[in-house]
Amino acid sequence: MTQKQNPRAVVLCSGGVDSTTVMAMAKKQGFEIYSLSFRYGQRHEIEIAAAERASRFFSVSRHLVLNLDLDKIGGSALTDVIDVPKGRSPKDMEGEIPVTYVPARNTIFLSYALAWAEVLGAADIFIGVNALDYSGYPDCRPDYIAAFESMANLATKAGVEGTKKIKIHAPLLHMTKAEIIKAGFALGVDYSLTHSCYDPLPDGTLCGECDSCILRKKGFDEAGISDGAHKA
Amino acid sequence: MTQKQNPRAVVLCSGGVDSTTVMAMAKKQGFEIYSLSFRYGQRHEIEIAAAERASRFFSVSRHLVLNLDLDKIGGSALTDVIDVPKGRSPKDMEGEIPVTYVPARNTIFLSYALAWAEVLGAADIFIGVNALDYSGYPDCRPDYIAAFESMANLATKAGVEGTKKIKIHAPLLHMTKAEIIKAGFALGVDYSLTHSCYDPLPDGTLCGECDSCILRKKGFDEAGISDGAHKA
Repeated sequence: MTQKQNPRAVVLCSGGVDSTTVMAMAKKQGFEIYSLSFRYGQRHEIEIAAAERASRFFSVSRHLVLNLDLDKIGGSALTDVIDVPKGRSPKDMEGEIPVTYVPARNTIFLSYALAWAEVLGAADIFIGVNALDYSGYPDCRPDYIAAFESMANLATKAGVEGTKKIKIHAPLLHMTKAEIIKAGFALGVDYSLTHSCYDPLPDGTLCGECDSCILRKKGFDEAGISDGAHKA
Repeated sequence: MTQKQNPRAVVLCSGGVDSTTVMAMAKKQGFEIYSLSFRYGQRHEIEIAAAERASRFFSVSRHLVLNLDLDKIGGSALTDVIDVPKGRSPKDMEGEIPVTYVPARNTIFLSYALAWAEVLGAADIFIGVNALDYSGYPDCRPDYIAAFESMANLATKAGVEGTKKIKIHAPLLHMTKAEIIKAGFALGVDYSLTHSCYDPLPDGTLCGECDSCILRKKGFDEAGISDGAHKA
């Protein structure tokens, strides 16, 4: 008797609210999870620790952390020594591409996810991008995700051989931060494990003033859920 | 009086015959060249040296070498400890995807090129992929390149703002190795600078028996051009 195996999925995982919620959704859908995180620039060691906590929480089969040389390319407040904006209202953030935008970041992340999926024999990739909530990133839009999926199916052995159709799952695309938090809460996500600050203090305390902190607070407030201790 | 600047282009550069020819073509078209190479796995230090020689030869504005963690993902004879096939005839190579295929490699390479192009304000990316000559790689086909270009235009600030249309130039797509060599020779390429072996000896001598060496030899033979000393 052969035991039926769950299909494998690669889940991009930054240790933040969004990607942790996505991991819960992938788990709920019955996938065997392979989580993928990236170490790039100087600012994000705390993200990796949160991604590791989330990966343990959901008993992933493997958590792979890749080192990226994005700081050599530059062009972003997250990899360069540009100041992260502080104290902006959600209204201020609307309609513009923020300096925290990392050029082609999601394309690079998804490309690695695609490579790993191919090696694992997985056809499913999950990413926590979100087109609402004032994100303003070009690579967080539905058209972009659809175009990446089309490209991915031409880029891979499985695509050529027609044996496996790659699917890019972006279940948060049209959800508000409050809706995401409510959905994750219903799936049992412990948000105290997560971290989502662009400019944390050296001890891991959230700055409370960057766009990410402000959107996080707004999301929990609107969801009517307590944020818990999301300190590293 | 303002001096008219040449437009910038990012040229993917492995130090081999194809990418060195592409660099000559980009130069000929009047672009200011930014060459991009990748260090991945263990086998390719000699490639980087050849890429550096080609970049100097064409007086690029900058040669950027990024370190990739592809060996952690595995799945290829170029990054894993899988044997590189030896002594196959071009006929043997036909129609199958070789074990030297690196999963999603061109997608990862082009994604970094896209990120760098965005930072440089460049709209043009050159890559030496080739659909003929028994390559068998899924990510070397015209449909794939077109799909990447569509995706790239949705992934970037310039795409969102409609200010710059990203173009992926793949001028070798439909050329045979002999045609490539003749074209490069006409543009003054010194092929003795280049290197294209999957499994060189420690002193840089070509193995002469891998697919890449065999296709190189066939190309020079058919072009009626002497290969020169393409030792590192």
